Amino acid sequence: MNSSIIRVVLGHVLKIEAAFMLLPCLIAVIYGEEEGFVYLAVAGGCAVIGTLMTQIKKPKDSSLYLKEGCVATALSWIFLSAFGALPFWITGEIASYEDSLFETISGFTTTGATILLDVEALSHTSLFWRSFTHWLGGMGVLVFLLAIIPLSGGSNINLMRAESPGPSVGKLVPKIKSSARILYVIYFFMTVLEILLLLCGGMNPFHAVTLSMGTAGTGGFGVLNSSIADYSAYCQWVITVFMILFGVNFNAFYFIMLGKIKKFFSVEEVRWYLGIIASAIALITINIYGTYTSIWETLRHVSFQVASVITTTGYSTADFNTWPMFSKVMLVSLMFVGACAGSTGGGIKVSRIVIMLKTVKKELNNYIHPKSIKKIMFEEKAVEHEVLRAINVYFITFVALYAASFIIVSLENYDFTTTFTSVVATMNNIGPGLEMVGPSGNFAFWNPISKLVFMVDMLAGRLELFPLLILFSPKVLKDLLFSNFIKRRS
Amino acid sequence: MNSSIIRVVLGHVLKIEAAFMLLPCLIAVIYGEEEGFVYLAVAGGCAVIGTLMTQIKKPKDSSLYLKEGCVATALSWIFLSAFGALPFWITGEIASYEDSLFETISGFTTTGATILLDVEALSHTSLFWRSFTHWLGGMGVLVFLLAIIPLSGGSNINLMRAESPGPSVGKLVPKIKSSARILYVIYFFMTVLEILLLLCGGMNPFHAVTLSMGTAGTGGFGVLNSSIADYSAYCQWVITVFMILFGVNFNAFYFIMLGKIKKFFSVEEVRWYLGIIASAIALITINIYGTYTSIWETLRHVSFQVASVITTTGYSTADFNTWPMFSKVMLVSLMFVGACAGSTGGGIKVSRIVIMLKTVKKELNNYIHPKSIKKIMFEEKAVEHEVLRAINVYFITFVALYAASFIIVSLENYDFTTTFTSVVATMNNIGPGLEMVGPSGNFAFWNPISKLVFMVDMLAGRLELFPLLILFSPKVLKDLLFSNFIKRRS
Repeated sequence: MNSSIIRVVLGHVLKIEAAFMLLPCLIAVIYGEEEGFVYLAVAGGCAVIGTLMTQIKKPKDSSLYLKEGCVATALSWIFLSAFGALPFWITGEIASYEDSLFETISGFTTTGATILLDVEALSHTSLFWRSFTHWLGGMGVLVFLLAIIPLSGGSNINLMRAESPGPSVGKLVPKIKSSARILYVIYFFMTVLEILLLLCGGMNPFHAVTLSMGTAGTGGFGVLNSSIADYSAYCQWVITVFMILFGVNFNAFYFIMLGKIKKFFSVEEVRWYLGIIASAIALITINIYGTYTSIWETLRHVSFQVASVITTTGYSTADFNTWPMFSKVMLVSLMFVGACAGSTGGGIKVSRIVIMLKTVKKELNNYIHPKSIKKIMFEEKAVEHEVLRAINVYFITFVALYAASFIIVSLENYDFTTTFTSVVATMNNIGPGLEMVGPSGNFAFWNPISKLVFMVDMLAGRLELFPLLILFSPKVLKDLLFSNFIKRRS
Repeated sequence: MNSSIIRVVLGHVLKIEAAFMLLPCLIAVIYGEEEGFVYLAVAGGCAVIGTLMTQIKKPKDSSLYLKEGCVATALSWIFLSAFGALPFWITGEIASYEDSLFETISGFTTTGATILLDVEALSHTSLFWRSFTHWLGGMGVLVFLLAIIPLSGGSNINLMRAESPGPSVGKLVPKIKSSARILYVIYFFMTVLEILLLLCGGMNPFHAVTLSMGTAGTGGFGVLNSSIADYSAYCQWVITVFMILFGVNFNAFYFIMLGKIKKFFSVEEVRWYLGIIASAIALITINIYGTYTSIWETLRHVSFQVASVITTTGYSTADFNTWPMFSKVMLVSLMFVGACAGSTGGGIKVSRIVIMLKTVKKELNNYIHPKSIKKIMFEEKAVEHEVLRAINVYFITFVALYAASFIIVSLENYDFTTTFTSVVATMNNIGPGLEMVGPSGNFAFWNPISKLVFMVDMLAGRLELFPLLILFSPKVLKDLLFSNFIKRRS
């Protein structure tokens, strides 16, 4: 394994993290908070270590193959979280390093599951950093790296493949670097638009910025203990719309950038995604009818919760744990569905679900017309055998990891629903589940082993399983432990 | 569609059911119960209708293609249940026809989920018929038909394929008719052996016969309200061992018949199956240690419950709903795993699970060695692409049907665990689930729509999805409704 190039990628990632950590320092200056010094010190540390890692010795071969791409991606996310957790711990705002790490992984993976009982006790500086991890994790830190750093040959695509959600890589234009830049431009522009619209609704600027970052990354960390419940109806609607938008395949936005607005709505995945949202809102509204004072209030809460869950954001304006069972089961099902591929959302992804359902339809059809040789079509193209195979194995792996996690955390003997939905909420990067981890609950009560399982699940969910799981392969582990990161090895 | 041949198959099935219904009549004579007359009348009705269906006009073409094979199988099971339910209803022992149908489908599909609050109130005649449906459904009624009736050409294999559990058809010898006979001989012999061993333990002969039929079919209907809890430890151990044996791939028993005892233990699926059982027993014993007075009692209850659940039988000697969450989650996981392919058990089947896990391992390996071209091996043979594809689409369909059922029955607003495990228990043909449908509960409280969903799930689970699901295809429905069952159509 080419360990030197992995070292260089990790070094770059740390330098980027150092640069980004200066933003909370700015917030500390504005609010006059001492926590800023901690962030400055950690940023300095990251910068020094990052520079050492990139400068100590240039790798002779700067190409990343698939394996190195995956390992580099997985380790980047672990490094980011390990260093990103330090300020929470050093400032003492989160008592243990392990809880700080949980919170940071939950942030970067855009899960939004928290171990904090009182969010409002955090400093502005830390609240900002907490929400900012969502924004960074949403589009991907390596995508950012690719937008600014040149790597040789096929290296870029292997990093992008490992970090991008969905069954195929979202290359918008032939050059990866340009693709990565376009993605970040759309992302930045839409985040700013949401901030402006929330400011128009009279929201406090700090809240507008942090909540918009949380929406953009489909994260879910709020800055109030009541999540989004205490904001105006207007602000809740703005956030609903933007959650749905950030769950859309970014390729579709690129069509809008190119002026092809009609094409936006002709993307098959987007049509399914919007159709599922509309159906879920209709069904749940009928199911909970009468719970709220007016039909508009009902519709607002249902739309918000459905958008929050399918995009895997995790904000809430109502405690859906108190809704009837049908609504809860619908929401838990949507947690598995997730958003579009190529969006910032998690879950299995709409395109995978649609293609899998099409294989079922085709199989039934084959029983009826055994000689039929119809191909499965998606986005007006025949789905290639390799894509089908990858989706199937992804799904099986997903269920297997799910089952293993469920069994391990059940050792703590909490109730079935809490145990079941804690894994749903972390693996799909949602945040809240049902019962003890419902919208008004949190993850603080789990013991360290279960928290470790959830951390692995969050990372596996965000990186779409394999890039993380190969770290558990004895061969890769041995390669990493015994490799010389300074000299180049083949 | 060749409807005439489907009519003939259904006619044969009804005649067989008529013949089998004479057995409960015999029980009625022994115990002097009037219910026997009802069984006699229904048997007569079945015989007349069956004869009319087979004799009215011979089909010109007696070959069954895949589609007709599936439709004939699905309709056979529906006919069997629809007529088999009549005695329960006419004798008034079950108040409504819909509940009688639920009980009969639960019997034939070897599920063992009951709507009865008091099993002991039934006549011996009906208790016998109820357990006998398990025995018939376990090995399959069409397999029985194949053992005695000649059908032309490839017809047999298409019926056997539709009814047999597992990813590939268990042809023991080149001739289907001989294979079917061998299967029934093994089945009959083992059932008799269990009866004898239970009699040696001093069990009442009626109980020994009914419970052995329930074990053989991996069904789960008992004759006491306490299921198996009130029998001696010796009898519980006998049932445990026989449950495990009836969950073994019958191909493996054929090796024993041929005297190749070593080969029995070299069947990969059997080794995995026994390994899973041993591990589950060990883990659950540690988890519940201290609940029972001695280690032997603990081991007996755990072994019994594990064997009952993985073979999808559903008998119980202890209420596992009161065990710690880890044990419950382990048992629910085993419900999905199920027994071996080619056994009388339900669930996804050990071979499918093992092959699916091997595809995950292969995928991880491909990330590490992208040029590797290793094939997936099972039972010392490379797994063919077509088998892999069939397993994948089976699994996706299973999950999709699971999710749809879960969402529909959640409308009744029972708790999450009851709702979730009711679907698990019916689709995998187990019987009991957790909470309200736990070992000490029953399915009586569900409303008719939910019961209908469970009936579909039980049949879909037993017939391995597609043979039943194609009945819902608009094309097949139209063909059936508008076809002339008397004249032959192509």
